[in-house]
Amino acid sequence: MSATFTIPLWVDLASVGVGSLQGALYAAGFRDRRLDLLGVAIIGIATGFGGGILRDVLLARIPLALESDFYLPVATVAALLGMLLERLFRRLGGFLTALDALTIGLFGAFGTTAALATGLPEVPAVFVGALAAVGGSILRDLLLNVPIALMHVGSLYAVAAIAGAVTLVVLRAVGVPVLVAALVCVVVTFAVRVLAVLLHWSLPEQQALRRV
Amino acid sequence: MSATFTIPLWVDLASVGVGSLQGALYAAGFRDRRLDLLGVAIIGIATGFGGGILRDVLLARIPLALESDFYLPVATVAALLGMLLERLFRRLGGFLTALDALTIGLFGAFGTTAALATGLPEVPAVFVGALAAVGGSILRDLLLNVPIALMHVGSLYAVAAIAGAVTLVVLRAVGVPVLVAALVCVVVTFAVRVLAVLLHWSLPEQQALRRV
Amino acid sequence: MSATFTIPLWVDLASVGVGSLQGALYAAGFRDRRLDLLGVAIIGIATGFGGGILRDVLLARIPLALESDFYLPVATVAALLGMLLERLFRRLGGFLTALDALTIGLFGAFGTTAALATGLPEVPAVFVGALAAVGGSILRDLLLNVPIALMHVGSLYAVAAIAGAVTLVVLRAVGVPVLVAALVCVVVTFAVRVLAVLLHWSLPEQQALRRV
Repeated sequence: MSATFTIPLWVDLASVGVGSLQGALYAAGFRDRRLDLLGVAIIGIATGFGGGILRDVLLARIPLALESDFYLPVATVAALLGMLLERLFRRLGGFLTALDALTIGLFGAFGTTAALATGLPEVPAVFVGALAAVGGSILRDLLLNVPIALMHVGSLYAVAAIAGAVTLVVLRAVGVPVLVAALVCVVVTFAVRVLAVLLHWSLPEQQALRRV
Repeated sequence: MSATFTIPLWVDLASVGVGSLQGALYAAGFRDRRLDLLGVAIIGIATGFGGGILRDVLLARIPLALESDFYLPVATVAALLGMLLERLFRRLGGFLTALDALTIGLFGAFGTTAALATGLPEVPAVFVGALAAVGGSILRDLLLNVPIALMHVGSLYAVAAIAGAVTLVVLRAVGVPVLVAALVCVVVTFAVRVLAVLLHWSLPEQQALRRV
Repeated sequence: MSATFTIPLWVDLASVGVGSLQGALYAAGFRDRRLDLLGVAIIGIATGFGGGILRDVLLARIPLALESDFYLPVATVAALLGMLLERLFRRLGGFLTALDALTIGLFGAFGTTAALATGLPEVPAVFVGALAAVGGSILRDLLLNVPIALMHVGSLYAVAAIAGAVTLVVLRAVGVPVLVAALVCVVVTFAVRVLAVLLHWSLPEQQALRRV
């Protein structure tokens, strides 16, 4: 159960870049706030590898993104590009959503296998994997002082990551090799997220039973 | 000084459940926000064992709640029950407040002894213990994007936890066995909290001296 | 590259005190919020050594401020003094800003060298050092539920810390002894911050290119 897999550095950096760029585009929606360039970079960094930092803090180890010189510049540059070329990237809306679905799949697969490799049981491994996938967007919203988007009625962003992580853990438990399980995790996360956006799937809103 | 004590798993899980249920009831006060079911579960998880996670992050170790398969389902189910049966639980208001006072006493006693066992000096052990007790409610408020309730004029929620933790540390310093000290900690926390609610005790509001 | 340097305990405590006092003065601007005395103490603690806690959490070790009995009382007393003697300290505005610039220089130098000593590469060492310097103000704003000041158009608060940390890392890379590099880091941070306040330097606001 303890095998992990390695994402090639360039794939991980590209995923971080996609996250950071998305973060900057999101921050651009708050232009009246007077964020400065550093603020945009911070949002990019938090969105791009905040999930990975939360994952490693919970696993009580130094964040992987701080063990290389590449992550911070990639996140910063991607965020500033996202800010400058906002109009261009807005036109790519659907493509970016698909790319982002792919990156949360990758982060989820990597986070879940890392948690299993550290010796966590299955359920917390799903938690850590899902947090690795979507924790960046939680940090982004905390830093922007806006409600956490993924806790509200929307399009199954975190649910997609959870579905992928659960699939991975189940496949691992029945003996599927880690690379295959990770691949299926990415596909499931991607499919749930993209279908949710296309078909307007969402979770029910909080409500109390009326008869009690 | 380094002895600790073990809370039986079912007591710890029951305490987490009480916290999660309270978190969901609190979140129900923001129904116009359109939290979805996952949002309610996240608030439940954060309130139920967020304090324990902060405790273990500060002690630089993997959170205990992630080393068992039980915590996440208990917190999630308790939060969803709290949401569904809100009207029922609201009628139990006083009973729930008393139960919650008991759980912050338990979390505080466990957190303080864990900090002492890790080798922290007395003052930081009180800090870690109090944070273990009430940190869940801080995380809850951060995630809901509302002011941190326990920082505002109210009913000695954190003060009760601090009073219990100070008592425990003093008793340990004079050689009282850990189980007795922990028990007194729970009693003190419970008493301060419940009396504060009944007698409307609160701390003074922030203010500056006028003559300087 | 792995040498670090030790700030004498009293200098570190004095810096924490300055930060906590500033935090309480900042919180006094939100008097309509009804923060109580504990709330003021929490803001003082978060501002005073929150940056150091973030530094040590990222370096996967128990926070230094929790390994001594002195930090919590110093931060609490400084915050309460800041609250009580607010009018007095407001009159010291410029002096306090200069003192604060000195403390972020010290925290930055200590954080950056600690990160290098832990084995982090240069770029993440700058990140950890800058976060150690200004992370307290981020925690302060998160806990007060207000926008993170340093992400908005202002007076190069975080930029000063980054400039100092970059200088330190470059000087270390070319073989300058750690104490000299740390001293230059403090001077650079201090100079950039104080000049930015005096000359109203700031970073550009976020904006998109219009032609794409």
